[in-house]
Amino acid sequence: RVNGERLWQSLMELAEIGGTAKGGVCRLALTDLDKQGRDLVTRWAREAGMTVTIDKIGNGFMRRPGRNNSLPPIMTGSHIDTQPTGGKFDGNYGVLAGIEVVRTLNDHNIETEAPIEVAFWTNEEGSRFVPVMMGSGVFAKAFTLEHAYAAKDTDGKSVKEELERIGYVGPEEPGDHPIGYYFETHIEQGPVLEDNDKTIGVVTGVLGIRWYDCTVTGMEAHAGPTPMALRKDALQVATRVMQEVVACAHRHPPHGRGTVGMVHVHPNSRNVIPGQVKFSIDLRNATDADCEAMDADIRAVADRISKETGLPIKIDLVSSYPAQPFNPECIEAVRRGAETLGYSNMNAVSGAGHDAVYMARLAPAGMIFIPCKDGISHNEIEDAKPEHITAGCNVLLHAMLERAGT
Amino acid sequence: RVNGERLWQSLMELAEIGGTAKGGVCRLALTDLDKQGRDLVTRWAREAGMTVTIDKIGNGFMRRPGRNNSLPPIMTGSHIDTQPTGGKFDGNYGVLAGIEVVRTLNDHNIETEAPIEVAFWTNEEGSRFVPVMMGSGVFAKAFTLEHAYAAKDTDGKSVKEELERIGYVGPEEPGDHPIGYYFETHIEQGPVLEDNDKTIGVVTGVLGIRWYDCTVTGMEAHAGPTPMALRKDALQVATRVMQEVVACAHRHPPHGRGTVGMVHVHPNSRNVIPGQVKFSIDLRNATDADCEAMDADIRAVADRISKETGLPIKIDLVSSYPAQPFNPECIEAVRRGAETLGYSNMNAVSGAGHDAVYMARLAPAGMIFIPCKDGISHNEIEDAKPEHITAGCNVLLHAMLERAGT
Ligand SMILES: NC(=O)NCCC(=O)O
Ligand SMILES: NC(=O)NCCC(=O)O
Repeated sequence: RVNGERLWQSLMELAEIGGTAKGGVCRLALTDLDKQGRDLVTRWAREAGMTVTIDKIGNGFMRRPGRNNSLPPIMTGSHIDTQPTGGKFDGNYGVLAGIEVVRTLNDHNIETEAPIEVAFWTNEEGSRFVPVMMGSGVFAKAFTLEHAYAAKDTDGKSVKEELERIGYVGPEEPGDHPIGYYFETHIEQGPVLEDNDKTIGVVTGVLGIRWYDCTVTGMEAHAGPTPMALRKDALQVATRVMQEVVACAHRHPPHGRGTVGMVHVHPNSRNVIPGQVKFSIDLRNATDADCEAMDADIRAVADRISKETGLPIKIDLVSSYPAQPFNPECIEAVRRGAETLGYSNMNAVSGAGHDAVYMARLAPAGMIFIPCKDGISHNEIEDAKPEHITAGCNVLLHAMLERAGT
Repeated sequence: RVNGERLWQSLMELAEIGGTAKGGVCRLALTDLDKQGRDLVTRWAREAGMTVTIDKIGNGFMRRPGRNNSLPPIMTGSHIDTQPTGGKFDGNYGVLAGIEVVRTLNDHNIETEAPIEVAFWTNEEGSRFVPVMMGSGVFAKAFTLEHAYAAKDTDGKSVKEELERIGYVGPEEPGDHPIGYYFETHIEQGPVLEDNDKTIGVVTGVLGIRWYDCTVTGMEAHAGPTPMALRKDALQVATRVMQEVVACAHRHPPHGRGTVGMVHVHPNSRNVIPGQVKFSIDLRNATDADCEAMDADIRAVADRISKETGLPIKIDLVSSYPAQPFNPECIEAVRRGAETLGYSNMNAVSGAGHDAVYMARLAPAGMIFIPCKDGISHNEIEDAKPEHITAGCNVLLHAMLERAGT
C-alpha cells in the first residue's frame, strides 16, 4: 500500500507553486511557475532514483528501471499545468500518484520485471495555448511538433520560445518512446462517483467530442417601433436551437451530452433586436456512431427551425475528437485492483478529454477516477478527500504491478 | 406649400458634416462635428431672420416673431446629433423641416399671430452620453442640469466641459421658456407606414418603455463529465425566459413589444456549462396600465420557471419611461393637415422615445411620422423618399399655422 500521507504532502507542496488566495492553483503551461513545478517534480523523481528524459515538446519521462529493460515501460502520468482558476488535483494528482508508486516500490525494495515510467505531458489544459492535450497529442502524432510550436498565447508568445525560455526543450523526438501499458489516475471532474458513493471509477472509455459554431442570422431593428409580427429576431430563433442541443442529448441516452457554453449577440444593445447570434455547441457521446447520430439530429432540427422561422441557421464543425474506448485488459486490471483492495467501485465513462485518450492510440490504456467534491473542477474550490487520493493511488500501484510483473 | 427641394438640399448639406463612406452620418453629441452642425443650422436660422437663444444645456431656440409676441411660441424641433452609425434623417429632418416652414412663411410674407420657434435639443441619441433625450429631459425637469452636466463619455469627458469647449453653454435657464404647442416631424423608424403604403403617420402617442436586467444563476460545471440530469445550466433556463419576453408581448396586443437585445453568459467558454446569464428585457406598451400588466406577467412567468427549474431568476427594473399620449388637439391638427393636403395617412404609435415625449409634459404636443426605407434607422443605410420628406414638412406647416393663427 502506498503512503497516502506522503502523497498528500507532495500534492500540497506542489500546489504552493502558483497557489491562489482562494486555495486553488494558477500555474499556466510554460510560465515561470510551470518551470518551478517541473523542477520540483523532476527533483522528487531523481531523489526517488529515477532518470529523467525530456522530449522536444517538453513532455517528461521519469523512469525506474526494471529487471528486463528491453521490455517497454509500464507508464502512468498526467499533467502539472493548471487552468487559470484551477485546483490542486486536476492533473497534478496523476503525476504525483505515479511518483508515490515508485516511492512505495522503493520503500519495500520491490523490483519489477518491466521498467516503470511516470510522464508529465505539456499543456494539457489548453488555457494558454491551443490545442488542448498538446504534449500527448504531439507524442501520439495527432498533430505535428511544428503545429504545436507555432501556437501562441494572447501576448503573442509561442510554445517554442516559451519552452526554450524555461529550459524544457529536450533532445528526444516526441513519440520515440515505447509504452507497454498506460494508466492515468484523475479526479472525476463530475459528480457521478460522489452521487453513487463509490471510491473508485473504473473508466471504460472517453466520450467522443464534437465542437460546432452555430450562427443564426436575422435582421437588426429598433426594439421600439418594430411590431412583433415584422421581426427577424435572431436571438429568439437561436434560443430554440440552444434548447434543442440539450434535448438532443436527452434523445441519445445514457451518455449523450449537449452544452451551449458560449454566446455572442450582435449588436448586443438593449433596444436593438438582435441581427445575428453566434453560439457554440458541444456534443458528446460514448461511440462515434452515437456522435454521428447526434450530429444528424441537431442538424435536422436546426433545418426544421430555419424553415419554420425563415431565418438561416449555419452549423459548422470546428473540432472533433473520436470516442476512445479503453483497453479491456487495462479496465479489468483497474477493477481487480479496486476489488482486491476492497474499494467500492463502478464503471465510469470520462466525459472530458485526457492525455490517456491519446496514449490509448499507442498502447493498451486505462484510467482510474476518484470522486471530487460536488464534481467541481477547473475551479479554485476543486477538492478531493485524502482517503480517495490514497485509494486511487493504491489501485494504480496494483494495476501497474500486475502489468509490470514482480 | 413648402419648398421640398430646398429642404432636401439642406438635409444633404447638413449630412456632409460627419458624412460616412456608406452614406450615413456620424455626428455624436458635443463633438467638433456637432458644433459644425449647430453652427450651420443657426447660420441658416439667422439668414431666415430668426433670433437664436441657447440655454445652459445647449438646447437652441430659433425664433420668428409673431404679431403678438406675448403669446407663447408654436414650437417644432428635434435633434441634430446622430448615432455613431446614424443616417441623414433621424432628428435632422425635424429641425430642418422647422427651418423650411419659416423659409416658406418668409417666401410668402406670411405673418403669424403667435411667434414660431424651432428647437434643437442636445444629445437626444444618448450614444455618447446617457441619459438619452438629455436636452429635452433637462428642459422638462425630468432630471437636473447638474445630473446631465456630470454625464461622461467613455474617455471621461463630461457634458459640461464638452459643451463649454464647443461654446454652446447659453445664458438661459433650461425650461424658462414658454411653449404654446409643440410639433415634431420624424422618420417613423419602423415599417408600419411603408407596409400600409401611407405617406403620413398621425402619431397618437409614444409607448411606455420599461428596461430590466434579468439574471439567472445556475452552477458552472464541465460540459463533459457532468450528466444532463445533474446540471444547473443557467443558459437553458435563461432561454425560456427570453422566449417568454416575446410571448408576453404577444399576450398584450396590439401595442405590446418585448425584446431581449443584450446577453452576457458567464464564463462564456465552449466546454463549461454556463453558471450565470444576464440579459436585458425591453418591454413597451401603449398605456402605463398595459406596461404594468406586462411587468406582472413576465415576473409571474419567471417565478414559475424558477420554481420549475430550481434556479434563481432576478428581474431588476433599470429605467422606465411612462407612456405618453399626445394631445387630441395636436393629433387632429396633424390629421387635418394631411387630409387637407390630400396625403394618405393613418394613426401611428411611436415605439421609440423622442424629444416630443418630454415636451408633452409641458405643452400640448403631437408628432408627424413619414415612412423610412424598410423601417430602418440607427443605421447608415437609413433612407427616406424626397416626396415623403416634403409631405411631412407640408403637414407641419399646416398644423403650425393653424395653431399660430395668421
Ligand atoms: N479535461 C479537459 O478539460 N479536457 C479538455 C477537453 C474537454 O472539454 O473535455
Ligand atoms: N429614438 C430612440 O432611439 N430613443 C431611445 C429610446 C428608445 O429605445 O426608444
